[in-house]
Amino acid sequence: MRLVLAVDVGGTKLAAAVVDSELRIRGRSRVPTPDTSDAEELFETLVACVAAALRGADTLPGDIDGIGCGCGGPIRWPAGKVSPVNIPAWRDFPLRDRLTEEFEQPTVRVHNDAVALAAGEHWQGAGRGARNLLAVTVSTGVGGGLVLGGRLHHGTSGNAGHVGHVVIDPAGPGCACGGRGCLEAVSSGPNTVRRALAGGWRPPAGGEADGRTLAAAAAAGDQTAAASLARAGSGVGTALASSAHLLDLEVAVVAGGLSRSGRTFWEPLRAAFDAHARMPFAAAMRITPSRIPAEAGLLGAAAFVLRPDRYGWDEPD
Amino acid sequence: MRLVLAVDVGGTKLAAAVVDSELRIRGRSRVPTPDTSDAEELFETLVACVAAALRGADTLPGDIDGIGCGCGGPIRWPAGKVSPVNIPAWRDFPLRDRLTEEFEQPTVRVHNDAVALAAGEHWQGAGRGARNLLAVTVSTGVGGGLVLGGRLHHGTSGNAGHVGHVVIDPAGPGCACGGRGCLEAVSSGPNTVRRALAGGWRPPAGGEADGRTLAAAAAAGDQTAAASLARAGSGVGTALASSAHLLDLEVAVVAGGLSRSGRTFWEPLRAAFDAHARMPFAAAMRITPSRIPAEAGLLGAAAFVLRPDRYGWDEPD
Repeated sequence: MRLVLAVDVGGTKLAAAVVDSELRIRGRSRVPTPDTSDAEELFETLVACVAAALRGADTLPGDIDGIGCGCGGPIRWPAGKVSPVNIPAWRDFPLRDRLTEEFEQPTVRVHNDAVALAAGEHWQGAGRGARNLLAVTVSTGVGGGLVLGGRLHHGTSGNAGHVGHVVIDPAGPGCACGGRGCLEAVSSGPNTVRRALAGGWRPPAGGEADGRTLAAAAAAGDQTAAASLARAGSGVGTALASSAHLLDLEVAVVAGGLSRSGRTFWEPLRAAFDAHARMPFAAAMRITPSRIPAEAGLLGAAAFVLRPDRYGWDEPD
Repeated sequence: MRLVLAVDVGGTKLAAAVVDSELRIRGRSRVPTPDTSDAEELFETLVACVAAALRGADTLPGDIDGIGCGCGGPIRWPAGKVSPVNIPAWRDFPLRDRLTEEFEQPTVRVHNDAVALAAGEHWQGAGRGARNLLAVTVSTGVGGGLVLGGRLHHGTSGNAGHVGHVVIDPAGPGCACGGRGCLEAVSSGPNTVRRALAGGWRPPAGGEADGRTLAAAAAAGDQTAAASLARAGSGVGTALASSAHLLDLEVAVVAGGLSRSGRTFWEPLRAAFDAHARMPFAAAMRITPSRIPAEAGLLGAAAFVLRPDRYGWDEPD
């Protein structure tokens, strides 16, 4: 029985799990991402999170056959130097080297967290058995990953899957990337909330202006909240239609906080997809929410090591 | 020395060539596509074209090791039943079976002509050596093909590469596919000419209202002609930016009639790409015209058979 350590580094939380080759999650741990500008403090928190997962699985680091890690981008791949947009403490932080050193593991694979999500959804989630899959996460940013021809598609520099920067409206809002009308500029959680606030929506007293509150307001009948979520959904639908035409996909899995907003998000998504994906092969693409939202990222990270033929890559020297 | 027959079936011309395993074109032939509604008459013309190529190469059908064919879409792949939009005589025409029978060849591979173009550009053209390439042809329609991870990407049903139906402007013109704002609706040759005509442009007396005349008018200073070509170019640039983000490509090869329109087309293409492809990995994608516009389709068709590891696929039973 092989055991690998799966690690997920995000702007909100750090998570770790021990996963065995029969796909069981044996031990897992999760902590909020510390609000620090100290790179070492953050790494120590991650090490403690990993240690807790190992304890939970009753496993010693020496029993582990490798580490797979998904981390917020951008990342230098396959070197595993990370500069997560939402984690300012790490800029070109050598996460792969540090994990190798800390846990004395020869095999450590670090990739974008949205790529880990795609691997997890393909391996064990809503995309099981598909030859061609796009996973999209609609959250603080909009990210994605691709499985093409049954294997993870990395692209030239490991950056394939940036569906958040597919242009859905060239006259649309400016994007953090410097472009205009990118999917992320229209449909990310913060941009969806911002649009609702600009339209006059306000969270209830004491509530935070976030995607969850916005979805609750929309469900309760707030038209401005609903309109902003609809715009987010239709943006995703348009980008999915473009992706379906370009790649001839079997399935798109939509995950992330905003994907849990219910009909206000999903119906406009479907409508925009149907309006733009008219060629039969594109229209046939299945669109589904994640069925394993809490596990996909960790399972995908584990798959980097446990199933290298499909989800792995040659490590740097 | 292996010899294969390469065939290219388009709305304007039929072409055939004998290609050897050292990539030499030994004999070739080309005839206008007959204006007929008779499926058999068209097939006979194609057979005569192939026979002429064989004679030119001093080759008998029995010396041939297989046939590769690019044909205007849509196609049922890998069955090779073709219904080219611009060739009404063929609807679900069993081109692969007929070529197999006519030339007694066990190996016959038929794919979309834009996919053949992508294979040819990757094998011998402007994309040589690239791991990840998109070829786009801007012509009567806008088609494309993809090489990903060093191999042709077919997609789930052989329809990958339909970059002409990437949405570049959701408020844009209706598209023949039934959608709206597709690249093809904005940037195909006929749609570019139509936009110029709607703006008041007219071809010179006795001239045809086609892409070539339009490009000549733009080069001579006609503002309406130039504006329409610029819109076509910027549409292509926007779609290339989306494709670069989604796929992390090394190179995009732009071919087809409109790509020979000069600066009026290329400068707006580049400007739109630069405006939208802001992430360094996407901005780094090379964009180039075809260097072998007259050969890429035939060489790619030959590659389906001569280099099956990269450009081939399992044939149907």
